[in-house]
Amino acid sequence: MMKQIQQVFNTRNFFRGNFGVEREGLRCDDKGHLVYTPHPEVFGEKLLNPYITTDFSESQVELITPVFQSIDETYAFLEGLYDIVAMEIKDEYIWPQSMPCIIPEDNEIPLATFCECKPGQEAYNYRKKLLAKYGGKKQLLSGIHYNFSFDEELIKELYKKATTDKSYRAFRDELYLKVARNYLRYRWLLIYLLGSTSVIHESYVEECVKQLEEVNEESYSNKGALSYRNSECGYTNKVELFPNYDSVEKYIVSVKAFIEESLIESPKELYSQIRLKAHNNKVFLESLQEEGIAYLEYRSIDINPFDKAGIKKDDLYFMHLFNLFLLFKEESEYVNWQEEALQNQRSIARFGQKNITLLKDGESIQKETWGIEILEQIKEIDKVLDLGQEVLIDQMMIKIKDYRQTYAYQIIGAVKKKGYIEAHLDLAKQYKQEAYNNRYKLRGYEDLELSTQILMKEAITRGIKAEIVDRQENFIRLEKGTNIQYVKQATKTSKDNYVTVLMMENKTVTKEVLDRQGIKVPKGTCFDSLEQALQAIQGFVNKPIVIKPKSTNFGIGISIFPEGGVKDDLEQAVRIAFLHDQTVLIEEFIAGKEYRFLVVDDQVVGILHRVPANVKGDGLHSIGELVEIKNQNPLRGKGYKTPLEKINLDESAGLFLKQRGMNFESIPSKGEVIYLRENSNISTGGDSIDYTDVIPDYYKRIAVESAKAIGARICGVDMMIEDYKCEDNKYAIIELNFNPAIHIHSYPSKGIERKIASKVIELLGY
Amino acid sequence: MMKQIQQVFNTRNFFRGNFGVEREGLRCDDKGHLVYTPHPEVFGEKLLNPYITTDFSESQVELITPVFQSIDETYAFLEGLYDIVAMEIKDEYIWPQSMPCIIPEDNEIPLATFCECKPGQEAYNYRKKLLAKYGGKKQLLSGIHYNFSFDEELIKELYKKATTDKSYRAFRDELYLKVARNYLRYRWLLIYLLGSTSVIHESYVEECVKQLEEVNEESYSNKGALSYRNSECGYTNKVELFPNYDSVEKYIVSVKAFIEESLIESPKELYSQIRLKAHNNKVFLESLQEEGIAYLEYRSIDINPFDKAGIKKDDLYFMHLFNLFLLFKEESEYVNWQEEALQNQRSIARFGQKNITLLKDGESIQKETWGIEILEQIKEIDKVLDLGQEVLIDQMMIKIKDYRQTYAYQIIGAVKKKGYIEAHLDLAKQYKQEAYNNRYKLRGYEDLELSTQILMKEAITRGIKAEIVDRQENFIRLEKGTNIQYVKQATKTSKDNYVTVLMMENKTVTKEVLDRQGIKVPKGTCFDSLEQALQAIQGFVNKPIVIKPKSTNFGIGISIFPEGGVKDDLEQAVRIAFLHDQTVLIEEFIAGKEYRFLVVDDQVVGILHRVPANVKGDGLHSIGELVEIKNQNPLRGKGYKTPLEKINLDESAGLFLKQRGMNFESIPSKGEVIYLRENSNISTGGDSIDYTDVIPDYYKRIAVESAKAIGARICGVDMMIEDYKCEDNKYAIIELNFNPAIHIHSYPSKGIERKIASKVIELLGY
Repeated sequence: MMKQIQQVFNTRNFFRGNFGVEREGLRCDDKGHLVYTPHPEVFGEKLLNPYITTDFSESQVELITPVFQSIDETYAFLEGLYDIVAMEIKDEYIWPQSMPCIIPEDNEIPLATFCECKPGQEAYNYRKKLLAKYGGKKQLLSGIHYNFSFDEELIKELYKKATTDKSYRAFRDELYLKVARNYLRYRWLLIYLLGSTSVIHESYVEECVKQLEEVNEESYSNKGALSYRNSECGYTNKVELFPNYDSVEKYIVSVKAFIEESLIESPKELYSQIRLKAHNNKVFLESLQEEGIAYLEYRSIDINPFDKAGIKKDDLYFMHLFNLFLLFKEESEYVNWQEEALQNQRSIARFGQKNITLLKDGESIQKETWGIEILEQIKEIDKVLDLGQEVLIDQMMIKIKDYRQTYAYQIIGAVKKKGYIEAHLDLAKQYKQEAYNNRYKLRGYEDLELSTQILMKEAITRGIKAEIVDRQENFIRLEKGTNIQYVKQATKTSKDNYVTVLMMENKTVTKEVLDRQGIKVPKGTCFDSLEQALQAIQGFVNKPIVIKPKSTNFGIGISIFPEGGVKDDLEQAVRIAFLHDQTVLIEEFIAGKEYRFLVVDDQVVGILHRVPANVKGDGLHSIGELVEIKNQNPLRGKGYKTPLEKINLDESAGLFLKQRGMNFESIPSKGEVIYLRENSNISTGGDSIDYTDVIPDYYKRIAVESAKAIGARICGVDMMIEDYKCEDNKYAIIELNFNPAIHIHSYPSKGIERKIASKVIELLGY
Repeated sequence: MMKQIQQVFNTRNFFRGNFGVEREGLRCDDKGHLVYTPHPEVFGEKLLNPYITTDFSESQVELITPVFQSIDETYAFLEGLYDIVAMEIKDEYIWPQSMPCIIPEDNEIPLATFCECKPGQEAYNYRKKLLAKYGGKKQLLSGIHYNFSFDEELIKELYKKATTDKSYRAFRDELYLKVARNYLRYRWLLIYLLGSTSVIHESYVEECVKQLEEVNEESYSNKGALSYRNSECGYTNKVELFPNYDSVEKYIVSVKAFIEESLIESPKELYSQIRLKAHNNKVFLESLQEEGIAYLEYRSIDINPFDKAGIKKDDLYFMHLFNLFLLFKEESEYVNWQEEALQNQRSIARFGQKNITLLKDGESIQKETWGIEILEQIKEIDKVLDLGQEVLIDQMMIKIKDYRQTYAYQIIGAVKKKGYIEAHLDLAKQYKQEAYNNRYKLRGYEDLELSTQILMKEAITRGIKAEIVDRQENFIRLEKGTNIQYVKQATKTSKDNYVTVLMMENKTVTKEVLDRQGIKVPKGTCFDSLEQALQAIQGFVNKPIVIKPKSTNFGIGISIFPEGGVKDDLEQAVRIAFLHDQTVLIEEFIAGKEYRFLVVDDQVVGILHRVPANVKGDGLHSIGELVEIKNQNPLRGKGYKTPLEKINLDESAGLFLKQRGMNFESIPSKGEVIYLRENSNISTGGDSIDYTDVIPDYYKRIAVESAKAIGARICGVDMMIEDYKCEDNKYAIIELNFNPAIHIHSYPSKGIERKIASKVIELLGY
């Protein structure tokens, strides 16, 4: 083994590979009963959503990650899918356990329904056959399917160094066959380390339940049980089938023989612990024959109730160490290895928590001894390849030595304490709360802008393939059917034309266009030089005006004189504005409050008003304490990673209070609102308040007309309104924004969370 | 007068106003014969082109400027219109004189034709009536119509200070009526100063010609003649008509009376020296009644043969001084002022070059004395208002004292020397050459980018209203009928969608999209940090690569290693690239030459290849001399104001030659091409060579497919081709450019000038 390992020592990151995880889960109600509600409509047609579908039952959701090159990405995406589904199923929960919740008899188990189309009906009929052949309850078992292949460069390197006459394809197939055989030989260890199905609800298959002892009033187990899902109580073929893993050809021949003997109907009915996967699994055998093995699928892993995603990231890391072990581990000549491996699996599944004896090449061996032996070899690999996973391997070492460290032991412990349903529901509720707290973000993509995360999340929800094309630029690619859309920063899309954006970018042009359409804009004058502006400044003295750079955003360089200003101050303001642009506008000041209207596709989908950072007194707490309380809102964070920012008790807030005769220790009376600064930016802890349902249609129409006038499909319309309750035309459009943030409307500090992303997705033609 | 002037002393720029000029001109061939060819089709339907139309005859082009606030803009636009027409009429010329060229008898004069539509037929029938009533030859007289109104702010200021009970409207009408009356009184001076029709061709109206003496074999005059156009030989009503200028009401009554008496058919047949103009001249009398006088039209001015535009800019300046004089000059009570003024006009027209006597309020006065008197008053105005036009007024003073300074004297002098036709044709040819030299630019808009000037020029040619909305940004607005388009920098339009542009802006995304479509792009790796790039650099040693920043343009920060490079050099190149972007690409180097394909609307409209600054030896001249000769091409200028830049004999060129054993004094052998630098940028004197007809369709299709793949309607496709003669797939797309310059294809240094602007205009739906 060492020779082979050292050969590839110089190669790249060994944790690079191709990883994809499928995770099933039953939907249940808050009493732990399987629900009969349909799969949420938002996920679209099941056969077309690559991420979220159902398995056997309509109530059995299946989460499918795309293939990623890293474990971290795969795990994060799986978490993200969980978050999405947990939020879309409203008051239902995802049952966090491979063994079912409270399930009905076969005739009441709802089969997954599909479209009227041919593949849809085939899928439905297939389920009907399974129900008849295997019974419905076992079909409700959920699990983790782990798909992986090695980094192709690694295989190429091994091939290069192997100095063999074989073709690369043959070399590659043999390599994966070896891994598959070794997986089967050593799978007992994975089952031991990850198994979590040590207890069964009474509503499960009667013949299983009746063999067992009661754990508490509703659940059953036997002493030492570790993974019923991997036992005879799990989902298996009618007779145990042993395909031939000697070569791809022999494998195909053996599978075809099973079909001919009517043991199975098709390769997908072969419920083996591992599956060879082809490049095109729709024509599996043909594709395998033509192109060889594409990747492997491990099917032994139970849902881990102690992890929201159903499998811990550490365990995924360990599995890849295990993969490397399987790759390098030389095989014995022992003939009846498949039968022996099955026997070991069953022993571990049923009595893994006990100190049992397994069979190794026909010889007895203590579970612990053999486990340590394997883990030592993995440790050796870790050391030679400098993988830095020693701590993780040591944890597994402890687990093999002490069954009380197993998930199986821990879950049965919780069940004993709280009952089967309660113990699992507690976990499900906790994960649902986490999903809620994560609702504004997409796991694995937290480095992107919030608006982009929200849009991607919505796309994934609807089964639109969402990929990043440029991470730094928040540039993504969406694909469903023939509709391919590129989107930058969530609102820069193909639906807006280029010159419209350039017009919005230019305040002079924006105003001219709106004015031509009879939409009110602040009257203003444009100056191309400081000299020119200073010459004209006398005419603006003591008039309510705003002095601002033509093109900058975010309020930078803007001075406002609501009551008019003296010449010196105006001159100063002009100089400041010219620091930020070559052209400066002096505009009439419009009284009132500013509202951001978000227009998507000629419709106002959100209206927001921002107010400066503030707290509301309760007559008890000090300003400082009130800020602390307000900052506990999970939507408030630091550094724009959340929709709102924490209020900072900084010097400028202190000064602001001091000028008003207060400090952080002052205790405002009940209901009194205390502001902590002048500016209403969200970035300095300001509040965003949803006004979408409050502002009259009169102003919404003006916003829509403004967007139309400039030709924009997605447009942030900043409108000053003197009093929105009066429809008296006292308004002015301050600015049109071509890249409006959507997260501020999606997650305001007060008011309804608006589903903006879905509007954008619909605009994009999905 | 002085009181009034001082009242407005504090006001703004007195040269601000509203100015529009119409200028007619006969089209003739290179022998001075009126041509019978149709008005060029490119100008579109005559009634719909606001800039370029015909007057009475199909062969009589009429140039119409929009209204500008400054004389400079008006004059420049008029020049621009001349340039456009001069180029579009191919080998014809615009006759530079109010009195016609060689014209046929009435029955052969081609009337202007119009569309089949109702207004078109009305226009045609009107011309037929005029032909019958006045004869065709007089209708061929061309002139300058000068339209103006004062800056409204000036009138408002005068109103404010007038302390009158009248309405503003009444005040304003009275003001313009006073100016109109004074214009009529003092018009003789303008005719004297600007008159240029002192000689007539023998083909003109026989009864005029026969009164005169032969100047030379083909032309006639009388001693002292100054402006036949303003004489009885000019275009006048059948009987002299004197409308009532006392008030708007009386004016309307008097004009209606003329119509009732069948003296004229409609107000537009009133050939007075001045016209009151209404806001809506289609319903002139009604509009005048309702809304008062909008502006005034002066009709006394001859085409100045000594100016391409037909009137000198200085004369336009003087006319506005004259306007101010008319505004401030108090009127006399003399009753028969209109008849007297006409008599003075006729005297000046027929004998203005002589020292004649005029009538002032019934008293005789020497032309010179009166002229000086008026000019002194204008000088006073200039002084009090600090207008700075003393030199100009002094020139007019000289002219009034010395008839040999008049245009009339000068043109007859030229005619005596060369003959009537030759003298004028020489000028027409000179103006046509100027127009050709200006073909890449639009007068009055030379501060804009060349591409924008070219596009505006094309729009104006087609009668599309073209306005600037943001000068610094090269942002324009086009309008014809209901089609309004905003365009920035000539190729940023509503036809491209926003995300397509963002995709082109991002090299990673561009490559990914092209690659997905099976279009070849250089293989490359993207690095987000210097550290990351340096770690990987070993893998690129000695390979042909290009190292470049992800997003910068113009070749900045790019290093090329066609033969591969050593590690140190690559590291250095990576460091340089990271100075310009946060992300750096290392790409395979593609051999061959780079071609810019310009794709507009799925069509390759131009292909360009750039070569470094060079000269071709003739065996006689030194490199320095050859550069000087090459730099004489009017397309070569300095500072991007021309399509090509002059080659600079700078240090780096010297060094480049030195390294090759040459210097600026070296004399290359005949046909030898000497390069002066490495880079092929146009900005350093490089040549642009048109390959549009040379490159096979094979590559054009690839360029079109590339633009389509990214969704671009206007796209610069930079393609490396190893050998364009071979269609062997040895190419790669280097970059897509969303704002391709159009001037480089429109005016290459070698090859056919491509009409790119018309492709863009057509894409925009015109």
